[in-house]
Amino acid sequence: MLKLFGYWRSTAAYRVRIALNVKQVSYNSVSVHLVKEGGEQHKAEYRALNPQGLVPLLVDGKISINQSTAILEYLEERYPTPALLPEDLYAKAEVRSICQMVACDIHPLNNLRVLQYLTGELDITEERKGQWYHHWIHKGFEALETKLLSHKSKGPYCMGSDLTMADIYLVSQVYNANRFNVDLNAYPRICAINEHCMTLSAFSDAAPENQQDAVSSK
Amino acid sequence: MLKLFGYWRSTAAYRVRIALNVKQVSYNSVSVHLVKEGGEQHKAEYRALNPQGLVPLLVDGKISINQSTAILEYLEERYPTPALLPEDLYAKAEVRSICQMVACDIHPLNNLRVLQYLTGELDITEERKGQWYHHWIHKGFEALETKLLSHKSKGPYCMGSDLTMADIYLVSQVYNANRFNVDLNAYPRICAINEHCMTLSAFSDAAPENQQDAVSSK
Repeated sequence: MLKLFGYWRSTAAYRVRIALNVKQVSYNSVSVHLVKEGGEQHKAEYRALNPQGLVPLLVDGKISINQSTAILEYLEERYPTPALLPEDLYAKAEVRSICQMVACDIHPLNNLRVLQYLTGELDITEERKGQWYHHWIHKGFEALETKLLSHKSKGPYCMGSDLTMADIYLVSQVYNANRFNVDLNAYPRICAINEHCMTLSAFSDAAPENQQDAVSSK
Repeated sequence: MLKLFGYWRSTAAYRVRIALNVKQVSYNSVSVHLVKEGGEQHKAEYRALNPQGLVPLLVDGKISINQSTAILEYLEERYPTPALLPEDLYAKAEVRSICQMVACDIHPLNNLRVLQYLTGELDITEERKGQWYHHWIHKGFEALETKLLSHKSKGPYCMGSDLTMADIYLVSQVYNANRFNVDLNAYPRICAINEHCMTLSAFSDAAPENQQDAVSSK
């Protein structure tokens, strides 16, 4: 059975959990506590599996894959049904573009190690750290909202009528934005897509608060 | 003919140029000057094409694609030969993982808009900005070096005997690291792969200093 190394609050691990649920693939969850004792992801035994010391990591038999986008593309090819990428080349590019707008230009700026560097090495105040966080969410969500509005007429998902990888990246990033109290009123399309997706069990079952390791970390 | 909106020094645009050269696809280059007059990428006419206001952007007839990873995956499907992704599912995942280690966890932390925010809004000194830059390069390259060493016996590329997308991400990031005077002596495998790739015209022709818009910006 597949083994997913993750952490309940990790946005990137959340993406993989949703994809596995959508594709109805069973997996064992292994919690890597990102905060306890300085972070279990930095321990030698975990770094031997993933030299980057980040979650998620998917282990499928003898192979292991890090980076959520690489994992999702792998799952898409290994378990093609239901598809999370459209067949049309341009639509597929549009989905991947939305995913990368989150994966490259929002999430990495706001993840734990970066926030720790800001308040640690750079000695930034908590207030300014919050401004930094909100800044990159707004920058990213403004562009995403514009892009997503162009598909609005076609249905409740990022691309309109079909659920795709793009919804997975969007929902997990909205969770993170809410956690940091970002006002999302300026993004009605993003909020509507998120709300719709959260009515699906594949998404709600994958939500951070519904993970086994959530309770002990609250 | 394809049209690529880019900028000579943009690491992400550099990736797309290499891929187009490897696949011997002709294209017209449109320079978007990222610094002049506060940055041409912020102008309304460019934002109408790409609401994110970043380069690169690829226009293929009526469609336009932003985000370099989405562009490279599109090119791979539109022009399959020579392939930049292996056929084997695990090898493909490994290539994508290397690409994302650069695209998500190194490059976005060190690109222009982030460095501008650090010295602007956060009022960080130039010295500390440099430390920030070096920090994320070293974090990323340490993990990459470990990963790449496992494929060393098989040949001169990231994955060994075959040129893949991973080499494209690596070479463009090494260019950027050199630009910011990062000491790369601790990463002999990364340096050897970079050196080998730069002997190929697909890579050297795509290098920033060989672009038409390079001269006027020096």
